[in-house]
Amino acid sequence: MTSSRRYTINKLLIEFIGTFFLVIIIGMVVKYGLGETGPLVIGLGLASIVYAGYNISGAHYNPMVTLGLVIMKRISTPLALLYVLTQFFAAGIGSLFCNYLEQNSVPFALATNSKILVAEIVGTFILIFVIWTVAASKRTAGNNYYGLAIGICVSALAVIFGKSSGAVFNPAVGFSFVCLEFINWSNYLFVLLGILIGGIPATYLFLRLEED
Amino acid sequence: MTSSRRYTINKLLIEFIGTFFLVIIIGMVVKYGLGETGPLVIGLGLASIVYAGYNISGAHYNPMVTLGLVIMKRISTPLALLYVLTQFFAAGIGSLFCNYLEQNSVPFALATNSKILVAEIVGTFILIFVIWTVAASKRTAGNNYYGLAIGICVSALAVIFGKSSGAVFNPAVGFSFVCLEFINWSNYLFVLLGILIGGIPATYLFLRLEED
Amino acid sequence: MTSSRRYTINKLLIEFIGTFFLVIIIGMVVKYGLGETGPLVIGLGLASIVYAGYNISGAHYNPMVTLGLVIMKRISTPLALLYVLTQFFAAGIGSLFCNYLEQNSVPFALATNSKILVAEIVGTFILIFVIWTVAASKRTAGNNYYGLAIGICVSALAVIFGKSSGAVFNPAVGFSFVCLEFINWSNYLFVLLGILIGGIPATYLFLRLEED
Amino acid sequence: MTSSRRYTINKLLIEFIGTFFLVIIIGMVVKYGLGETGPLVIGLGLASIVYAGYNISGAHYNPMVTLGLVIMKRISTPLALLYVLTQFFAAGIGSLFCNYLEQNSVPFALATNSKILVAEIVGTFILIFVIWTVAASKRTAGNNYYGLAIGICVSALAVIFGKSSGAVFNPAVGFSFVCLEFINWSNYLFVLLGILIGGIPATYLFLRLEED
Repeated sequence: MTSSRRYTINKLLIEFIGTFFLVIIIGMVVKYGLGETGPLVIGLGLASIVYAGYNISGAHYNPMVTLGLVIMKRISTPLALLYVLTQFFAAGIGSLFCNYLEQNSVPFALATNSKILVAEIVGTFILIFVIWTVAASKRTAGNNYYGLAIGICVSALAVIFGKSSGAVFNPAVGFSFVCLEFINWSNYLFVLLGILIGGIPATYLFLRLEED
Repeated sequence: MTSSRRYTINKLLIEFIGTFFLVIIIGMVVKYGLGETGPLVIGLGLASIVYAGYNISGAHYNPMVTLGLVIMKRISTPLALLYVLTQFFAAGIGSLFCNYLEQNSVPFALATNSKILVAEIVGTFILIFVIWTVAASKRTAGNNYYGLAIGICVSALAVIFGKSSGAVFNPAVGFSFVCLEFINWSNYLFVLLGILIGGIPATYLFLRLEED
Repeated sequence: MTSSRRYTINKLLIEFIGTFFLVIIIGMVVKYGLGETGPLVIGLGLASIVYAGYNISGAHYNPMVTLGLVIMKRISTPLALLYVLTQFFAAGIGSLFCNYLEQNSVPFALATNSKILVAEIVGTFILIFVIWTVAASKRTAGNNYYGLAIGICVSALAVIFGKSSGAVFNPAVGFSFVCLEFINWSNYLFVLLGILIGGIPATYLFLRLEED
Repeated sequence: MTSSRRYTINKLLIEFIGTFFLVIIIGMVVKYGLGETGPLVIGLGLASIVYAGYNISGAHYNPMVTLGLVIMKRISTPLALLYVLTQFFAAGIGSLFCNYLEQNSVPFALATNSKILVAEIVGTFILIFVIWTVAASKRTAGNNYYGLAIGICVSALAVIFGKSSGAVFNPAVGFSFVCLEFINWSNYLFVLLGILIGGIPATYLFLRLEED
């Protein structure tokens, strides 16, 4: 096996583990109905696995992050496709695993589709902006807070937008919400659209900021 | 566009995003009545956006912070005015956004005006003192904990003073509380007075400490 | 004013602010009955003020910490006495301030005196050991986690020992508990004894570890 | 006493203190029924004691961590045996101490043995993987987040797997669960098996990643 292929497999392994962990944290928090501390647990769990994988795969765990890095030309398109496939695969397996641990599942009571769309646009814009500024910027290179900053941003966003759109901000997590029957395919479409409309401008804003 | 003007616009964009995020975290935590974990979510969300914006705009998100930096001659008065306008503008937009996500709003049951004043004086003194010592001091330059330290200070202050004055400590956040009908204009006046009486001496204490 | 006297006053100001903040966090968390998140808020608030004051006064905020540094010959005895007086003074003022914000006060339902003693011995031993290893050791000099590590140690100890001894571990905090009528003078005696019996051996253990 | 023997005793003292602290946090959180914040308190308490002991003993506090370091040839087998004995001894003493503080004990309502096994395999795999990547990797050497990352990983895992297997992931903690009558010896056997089946592959995965 060439070492390049070996590198790729290692990265995909990390993306699988990280996305799987993220999906099962969220899935079980929802299934167990942890209303008060759930958002904190989700954010802190995400922080830990971001720290674990950042130096190997970049710790994307989110197709919107991978897409943003394609836009920024920091990852090749073929590798990005493998990342995204792995993230969705991990989300599917993670959903099955959640249902294995706990059968019961109650669908979210979401807001209207237009509110879902707006919530996902604004939330994803903020999340992607925070991710780039703390984990992809030349200004903050080598810092030790990136994982925590991303995680606790997700915690706050989950509180703000949880009751409107389910606070997804991540197409793979959204896919797991469909698998777990928290949301339906129609909700997912609006979620996905919102993620793209929020995440892409955040990426261009970051590129503008980095030029200085 | 001159690069100086471009820098300014970037800074104002960051102040807008950061203040908007701060205002909607607090607004939704209050609207959803998160009594136990609300203060933690507010503090941690603030920490994340402080880390995100610190290296671009300084991550003020609070007119009292901007005023303090004017006193310390670390920001020009014209730029400071633009910062403060942006912060209030973001607070207004953030309030509208909170009301879009969730209509209901219950006014705070605040203490007497004299208690509001005292609570805001003491709380703002502590907050501004912590902000300067961790994020503006030569003694702690280059540290990685500034965002977290500021955020969790706000969490603790929110618990201590929430039931007395609403734990504002930030004129822009206070303005959003008026917009969201959590407090009225008369409350806001006492809040504003308390912030100034607490924040300005904290700044002079810091200047004294930095002289050594 | 000589600069040495000026340094001393600055340090005492920091010890006053830090101990006052610590005392009012704990006091209000108890008064508001924050059973689940209280320990986290206390620990995180302490962390923030430790970060704020560490580079000026050493951020003791606890007479047992000051005593330990006397044992380690890292602070002169006269300055240590001023520190301790300031800490008790801040605890008294902080208690008055808590009663100003909220009159009601319910005494703790503590365990037997022997359990109070044991809980304070074991808890103080662990706390002082953690403080020295993260904030006073040559092995960890220059780290960025000391404040957080101390704070979250207190959070965990507050959960473990809160119902047995009130989880004091700090003679100044214990004094504020008497002022706030959470505990009585007889309880305080056992608390104080436990703190000394736990804190002094932790200091000698640390000295042994540092010799290597 | 030779200095080598002295080093060894110091390391065992740290392993004793750290494992004892971890066991009494978990034990008291369970005994006091802290459903919402318990997992956060456990993780943050662990983080603090990991920071305290890491530079002396390596802060294992978990026989599976010690075994992994034997596999990686980073600790001698005789010293590893002393570590493991100390960890179990501390778990036993810690359990007695928990029962001293609070007599009552309610057994966990665990899932089936096969679910216990699966939960411990997956949870231990993730935990051990996170521990190696943040605290044992050449890629992340010298970082300041290792303790927090490990602690909050445990918090998330405790939420995900607590109701299935008790979220043990640590043979010494599992032993304390038996002593505290949270689980029985038959449960413990499946827990232990799961830890080994999860922890050993995580170690080999890490070795593969480090080769690059």
